[in-house]
Amino acid sequence: MAIKGLWSIGVDLGGTKVEMARVDGEGKIDQRMVLPTDVRGGPSTVKAQIIAAIRDIENKTDSRPVGVGIGVAGQIDAQQGVVRFAPNLGWHDVSLQSDLSQAVALPVVITNDVRAATWGEWIHGAGKGSQDLVCLFVGTGIGGGVVSGGQMLSGCSNTAGELGHITINLNGLPCHCGNKGCLEACAGGWAIARRAQEAIRLNPVAGVHMLNMVDGQHEAVNAKIVAQSSREGDPLAQSILDEVFQALLAGTVSIVNAFNPCRLILGGGVIEGLPELIYRIARGIHQLALEAASGPLQVLPAQLHNDAGVIGAASLAMQLFTSENK
Amino acid sequence: MAIKGLWSIGVDLGGTKVEMARVDGEGKIDQRMVLPTDVRGGPSTVKAQIIAAIRDIENKTDSRPVGVGIGVAGQIDAQQGVVRFAPNLGWHDVSLQSDLSQAVALPVVITNDVRAATWGEWIHGAGKGSQDLVCLFVGTGIGGGVVSGGQMLSGCSNTAGELGHITINLNGLPCHCGNKGCLEACAGGWAIARRAQEAIRLNPVAGVHMLNMVDGQHEAVNAKIVAQSSREGDPLAQSILDEVFQALLAGTVSIVNAFNPCRLILGGGVIEGLPELIYRIARGIHQLALEAASGPLQVLPAQLHNDAGVIGAASLAMQLFTSENK
Repeated sequence: MAIKGLWSIGVDLGGTKVEMARVDGEGKIDQRMVLPTDVRGGPSTVKAQIIAAIRDIENKTDSRPVGVGIGVAGQIDAQQGVVRFAPNLGWHDVSLQSDLSQAVALPVVITNDVRAATWGEWIHGAGKGSQDLVCLFVGTGIGGGVVSGGQMLSGCSNTAGELGHITINLNGLPCHCGNKGCLEACAGGWAIARRAQEAIRLNPVAGVHMLNMVDGQHEAVNAKIVAQSSREGDPLAQSILDEVFQALLAGTVSIVNAFNPCRLILGGGVIEGLPELIYRIARGIHQLALEAASGPLQVLPAQLHNDAGVIGAASLAMQLFTSENK
Repeated sequence: MAIKGLWSIGVDLGGTKVEMARVDGEGKIDQRMVLPTDVRGGPSTVKAQIIAAIRDIENKTDSRPVGVGIGVAGQIDAQQGVVRFAPNLGWHDVSLQSDLSQAVALPVVITNDVRAATWGEWIHGAGKGSQDLVCLFVGTGIGGGVVSGGQMLSGCSNTAGELGHITINLNGLPCHCGNKGCLEACAGGWAIARRAQEAIRLNPVAGVHMLNMVDGQHEAVNAKIVAQSSREGDPLAQSILDEVFQALLAGTVSIVNAFNPCRLILGGGVIEGLPELIYRIARGIHQLALEAASGPLQVLPAQLHNDAGVIGAASLAMQLFTSENK
């Protein structure tokens, strides 16, 4: 239950930008700011950016927030409040939670950015009210979060839900992670770009439609171009996206059989650019997954889009720090 | 904590046999019996078999058990105490829990047989003391169970953990489940037999070693024959088992990345027949899974072997019905 008037601050910390928002107990954003992340300045500069922004948000209100939630693109030790490794920030073992908490005199919780987005969809988005759900975010990379029996899964070292790195084709192409045939290496935005660029290189005639869209710069072909080209009837782009669909179907069938969620929530840039995928995936899962597992399943689009991270981080703080105060 | 002197009854109900045991609070079997399942007699006959056996076990002791746990090879509605579908028994929507409970005047809990085996390994086997583990049982089929954050995952319709039906090769061979390229369709006992028989049909010269072992009856070649033949140096059998290893590695890497368990426990007939697989899989996971996920992972052999089901079912009853009595 949201307590009227209470609010928290959500932060989505990535290698390019820091998004921050004041979020109320219903998950509504009242005030937001976006800063370019000062990666070069290092952890202390980025912390100072966040601290200044929190003060700025506070100064515009007469009530204090119940706390701050921060989603970070990286591997998080939530217990210790430490960012173990954040490749886009170039951070290793950065103590974030206690430093920020001391500076702003507020309770702070940190989590992984995909986990934060899953909290957002669970508490205020397409997962509202469900006890068993999986979020799969298909963007440049692919990440996920799992709620099972009303509990967000974290796993042994807080990395549960790395659903982009389930193998769907053990003979498949290399993945950035060092393995091959991962779901992400077949259906992530970077993999779609790789696949399209390779196809155009092999057959520039077939690739002429996409090439024209990027003025012949074939390294500029990305997932967005493939999607647009496919909508315009280009057979090569369509065949690439059909492979992407088959990959996503194999991955989501695995997820449904392994986790048996009540809801599978699909989000991220690739899904938002190809919303028709959601219906096709839903139909495919009901054909191919175990009947007992898929029977009660709903496949739904994510609702919070780019705000899932800040809303989720803020909601996590709200949940954690209002229940502690009880 | 086991309470001294307390005991429960574990039942492992399959399509061929019913295994039952008196199990103490430490997971030790004091007394056991095995009956052929009277599948033809239908549910009422099988229930009568179990009731008679429970009474028999009770009559040999002066104390009463705290309850009965039953693992059934099928889809279970644990809340309703109903076997929704058990193909090997030919059962659809059979009310088991309340009927048995009334007949023997004891609390009864039913669960899926693989889930029961997972309970066994968790409480008294290789998973003892862990809060995050995955059991993967590789027998004729492949099944699994997942404990995450100290909670046995059940999922939306109680089928979570169907790890034999994660796709590892989206272009792979058909699976019994209707999909293709499932882990089970590449590495389950039936799939190993199919693969070997097919290879021998295509090249009887290469298959001569295995064929000789089954007196030329190539349909008698099974996983056991392949394993034995491989140990005897047969190159065809060795190459088939190398494919099985690659499949199991892809599947277990997926599992480690998705669930991030502290322990991966491998059991079942195929693993017990090829125990060297455990070390190879462990090494492969540490090479191919995400470092953050596999860092703390231990890969261990299951400890309870064929007794995991009865011990697990009994332990579940023990846990459920002693905590209720508190």
